[in-house]
Amino acid sequence: MRPVAIIGIGQTVIDEQWEKSLRDIAAEAVVSAMHDARREFADGLFVGNMMSGTVNGQNNLGPLVADWAGVRSEPASPLHAGPSTALRAGAVKVEAACASGGAAFRSGLMAVASGELESAIVVGVEKMTDRHPHEVTAALATAADADYEVDMGVSFVGLNALIMRRYMHEYGWKHADFAPFAINAHANAVHNPFARLRHKITLDDFEKSAMIATPINLLDASPIGDGAAAVYIVPAESVRSGTRILVAGSASATDTLAIHDRTEPLFLAAAYKSAQEAYRQAGVGPDDIGVFELHDAFTIMSALSLEACGFAERGQGIRPGLDGEIGPTGRIPLATRGGLKARGHPVGATGVYQIVEVVQQLRGECGETQVPGARVGMAQNIGGSGATIVTHILKAG
Amino acid sequence: MRPVAIIGIGQTVIDEQWEKSLRDIAAEAVVSAMHDARREFADGLFVGNMMSGTVNGQNNLGPLVADWAGVRSEPASPLHAGPSTALRAGAVKVEAACASGGAAFRSGLMAVASGELESAIVVGVEKMTDRHPHEVTAALATAADADYEVDMGVSFVGLNALIMRRYMHEYGWKHADFAPFAINAHANAVHNPFARLRHKITLDDFEKSAMIATPINLLDASPIGDGAAAVYIVPAESVRSGTRILVAGSASATDTLAIHDRTEPLFLAAAYKSAQEAYRQAGVGPDDIGVFELHDAFTIMSALSLEACGFAERGQGIRPGLDGEIGPTGRIPLATRGGLKARGHPVGATGVYQIVEVVQQLRGECGETQVPGARVGMAQNIGGSGATIVTHILKAG
Repeated sequence: MRPVAIIGIGQTVIDEQWEKSLRDIAAEAVVSAMHDARREFADGLFVGNMMSGTVNGQNNLGPLVADWAGVRSEPASPLHAGPSTALRAGAVKVEAACASGGAAFRSGLMAVASGELESAIVVGVEKMTDRHPHEVTAALATAADADYEVDMGVSFVGLNALIMRRYMHEYGWKHADFAPFAINAHANAVHNPFARLRHKITLDDFEKSAMIATPINLLDASPIGDGAAAVYIVPAESVRSGTRILVAGSASATDTLAIHDRTEPLFLAAAYKSAQEAYRQAGVGPDDIGVFELHDAFTIMSALSLEACGFAERGQGIRPGLDGEIGPTGRIPLATRGGLKARGHPVGATGVYQIVEVVQQLRGECGETQVPGARVGMAQNIGGSGATIVTHILKAG
Repeated sequence: MRPVAIIGIGQTVIDEQWEKSLRDIAAEAVVSAMHDARREFADGLFVGNMMSGTVNGQNNLGPLVADWAGVRSEPASPLHAGPSTALRAGAVKVEAACASGGAAFRSGLMAVASGELESAIVVGVEKMTDRHPHEVTAALATAADADYEVDMGVSFVGLNALIMRRYMHEYGWKHADFAPFAINAHANAVHNPFARLRHKITLDDFEKSAMIATPINLLDASPIGDGAAAVYIVPAESVRSGTRILVAGSASATDTLAIHDRTEPLFLAAAYKSAQEAYRQAGVGPDDIGVFELHDAFTIMSALSLEACGFAERGQGIRPGLDGEIGPTGRIPLATRGGLKARGHPVGATGVYQIVEVVQQLRGECGETQVPGARVGMAQNIGGSGATIVTHILKAG
């Protein structure tokens, strides 16, 4: 398997972008990544998206985005003298609920690593705000088990609330203990021009915010939004050191879809498994990770991810927050561009935003929230309540 | 890129399977393929599916199917002494409209070819008949351009009807000239226990069948259905010759999503491009193809595919049918197990059915519709009206 490198990144603001369609924002990110990579062509396109069929009435995003963004392959057909609009190695959509972005990146990675493609663009996109919030809530619930969870009346927030409540009961934490994750994310988002919620919050704000599904309140939860992020990848050997970010580890693992089928519902087995495999591939451990873009869709998920990935003991995942270790200059910087919590969570796009943000950190482009001397970063994307977890480790290279 | 081989296949009957859910039929095909491969574990799972989010209220099919089918990875975690339920290399859904099955197979192929996985299962599944036909028609339309085609009022059958009418006008063919494709498919399906429509039809039946969208009548069109098909793949080097079918060529290409954006709406550019690339990889040409499982969703698509893949001149794609060359003993055997037309078209599953059927031919398991001495076969899967086209060439190996 040949090493793969990222040579271009692009992203759109995350917001209610009512004046733009799904294809517009996807193309905006793709063109931006191609411009950053200084490339005009690509062999293949991988689109991470969760709910376009349900919310936008549009499947087959591969050719839609390739065409709209003008992603073309180099001439390879006697029918066309110029660049061909028929993308040489095709385009597909990869779906793994909220982990669609990370899964699409991994698919693109393997296509380039295999030698089949010499270049690929991975774009994560979600256009969620054109529909009524009730419809979006229903669409989000398709990430859980339709027959054995959703049909019983539970929403996706409700499932996370059950986990959080059990965690608090089991380990004796109180709700305010989760606040540092949200406060840190909002503080970092202030400096990210692409973030949806660019304002600071206090512990008092956190404690007084509206209850959504006990014990999850508004500031435990991440906001949805319309957004797209993209990366351009090539074989590492094809570009010189200093102009690329290396993909040092890539792993994915699954757990049962329904939470009630798990032996240990408070342990993210797929996060553990994919992180261990990514560490092994990259030859690093938790202590080497300079920045960790984790899947903080809800504050409880930050705690569980830190435990599963070796940054905290079981039941102690909120310690790094309470101990002031998660800021840009802390032991394990989290959500440095705002995370899902404040940058925003356009579900199928999120995994690619995370990759883009780790690249920004390793390039040293993060200004006020730059992690000093960051050389190794990790992005972890979760689909469903821990059912699909994709972990990537990047290195400056 | 290391060569990959298929060592197991499985499929369910295609029908209205109201007593089973999506997960049931997917698991049935997966377990059948694992049994055929004599394997109990797999590294990764790839699910080809188009409309589960829309029609079944269920995304995140990767972990759903992995869990339900009992696809486990071998022990790799200190948390588990026995086989782990957390699939080592994860599971994703790949979507490319009606080409989802072929695209999922290609994704699994690249994952194994890259060296990242030592084994993978690819399953195509679609559960379409639990909803009202009007809802299924709307879901099928998500394969076309939502903003510029579907919003104008055209259905997916309607788009194909426009192409067929133009083709008849341009080249002077009459409707009955398309009959041989349907008659051959139905004749072959009689002998396939998994096929949906196991009855012969005559030219008279074809000419008198109900009009759907002029000039497409009921017997030009393929039936939907509930079904799943699966294959088990490994590195070719890991199994000995005689127990495997080699994947000799794999290619995918895109065209514009909307037909009106194409310079030549009667030429399947992506079929041409992906077939050429697959021929190149396999070191073969049209004359070497012993069996061709093409995407006969509508009879016009058979004609266009034959032209784009080098089996007929432009405008002459229906000739092989009229000349009696498409039966199991003909020059270019098509739809040998019934094709989309009579075996049935459970959209996201179809591409994997095609692969399974080519494997059956190369293994010599097709009884009355066995192609004598078949050594090389091709499967071609189309998503949208030619927007995504995936071509695979298999060889007895």
